[in-house]
Amino acid sequence: MTKSALILFAHGARDAQWSEPFRAIRQAVAARRPDLTVEIAFLELMQPALGDCVARLVKDGHTRITVAPLFLAQGGHLKKDLPRLLKELSTRHAAAEITVLPAIGEVTELLEAISEWLVSSAPRVAKQ
Amino acid sequence: MTKSALILFAHGARDAQWSEPFRAIRQAVAARRPDLTVEIAFLELMQPALGDCVARLVKDGHTRITVAPLFLAQGGHLKKDLPRLLKELSTRHAAAEITVLPAIGEVTELLEAISEWLVSSAPRVAKQ
Repeated sequence: MTKSALILFAHGARDAQWSEPFRAIRQAVAARRPDLTVEIAFLELMQPALGDCVARLVKDGHTRITVAPLFLAQGGHLKKDLPRLLKELSTRHAAAEITVLPAIGEVTELLEAISEWLVSSAPRVAKQ
Repeated sequence: MTKSALILFAHGARDAQWSEPFRAIRQAVAARRPDLTVEIAFLELMQPALGDCVARLVKDGHTRITVAPLFLAQGGHLKKDLPRLLKELSTRHAAAEITVLPAIGEVTELLEAISEWLVSSAPRVAKQ
């Protein structure tokens, strides 16, 4: 049977608490997708790095790996750093199929969820 | 009548395209909250800076300003940089009431929306 994994790929930060929302997302997704190994990996400042995470998953027999970039928008990190990393990893682990999901800000329904939350959360001034 | 504004506060990036999702959110929120002036401001690398944005809004008569940090998680930028900026701005513009919404990763319903999207978007392997 094909072993599949989903890697939540986040930027990383110096503050350990920064990763908490990503850990909450990981737990929620893992609970609802028992067919997937769900991991978190970081671009910088936190461990594991994406390369180490992929290497471990491949070693553990995963042949289908999906990378979900948990970034709000696409800049140099997603346009340059990630493709470069993925190219390296695809060469190094040729037996694994590695695909990438769009960034959060490229997903219409997530932009709508954020907009909707702002619409309902920004304080309203009582009419005078 | 009180003039209110909502500032979408984002990190900023070198790549001009990076701001597109935030502009889409701004447009969606402005369309549904005609009672608010909705602006975007950045921590770094893009203009306007938060301080310039607040100064312009105050000059234009806004006395109630809500800052929505469009960051996935809380690290040094939201725990140190933003409070320092807000303290300065509250002193400089004492007549304006400046409040802050939680970061995206602190909002349960937004974490759920992201998780839900991942649950439905990660490829499923056909049973063999």
